[in-house]
Amino acid sequence: MARVVVDVMLKPEILDPQGQAVANALPRLGVNDVTSVRIGRRIEIEFAGEPDLDRAREIADKLLANPVIEDFAVHVDAAGTVKPASDSQESQPAEAPA
Amino acid sequence: MARVVVDVMLKPEILDPQGQAVANALPRLGVNDVTSVRIGRRIEIEFAGEPDLDRAREIADKLLANPVIEDFAVHVDAAGTVKPASDSQESQPAEAPA
Repeated sequence: MARVVVDVMLKPEILDPQGQAVANALPRLGVNDVTSVRIGRRIEIEFAGEPDLDRAREIADKLLANPVIEDFAVHVDAAGTVKPASDSQESQPAEAPA
Repeated sequence: MARVVVDVMLKPEILDPQGQAVANALPRLGVNDVTSVRIGRRIEIEFAGEPDLDRAREIADKLLANPVIEDFAVHVDAAGTVKPASDSQESQPAEAPA
């Protein structure tokens, strides 16, 4: 099983009100050194056999991204980037599921 | 200027109807070897100075992800992952903006 990741982001010249809203909320958390927040989509595609980047590109172009306002990038995933609870430093090692 | 990327995905045990809809549409494109599609969010945070992973983790935890149903991963971005039109193989080198 192989996973291809498609990252879809609004083009830089397109306004991102959702990201702007997050950026505007940051001073309330005491964060003052963030200059911009942009919010896009991350799509994980699992292939039964070999990961097929050309296929993934075609899927992204036809189904996942709007090429008028969005850019996308396709890459093969190094197994499991987003792991449960792996990012809280106070958490126990992620080996044992709770 | 440094960029931190936060990837937010639904936990594996949570149903993803949006990804399911994409997966169901794939046979119409002639793609039959995809076993699953999951759709999450990719958030790019630009810091004015040094990229601050701990800060980014705090932002993700408090503003970007719902820890009940979502996992997130934080990493420093290797400059500009999502580039305009860089994924169409027929396109010219991305150096010169159109």
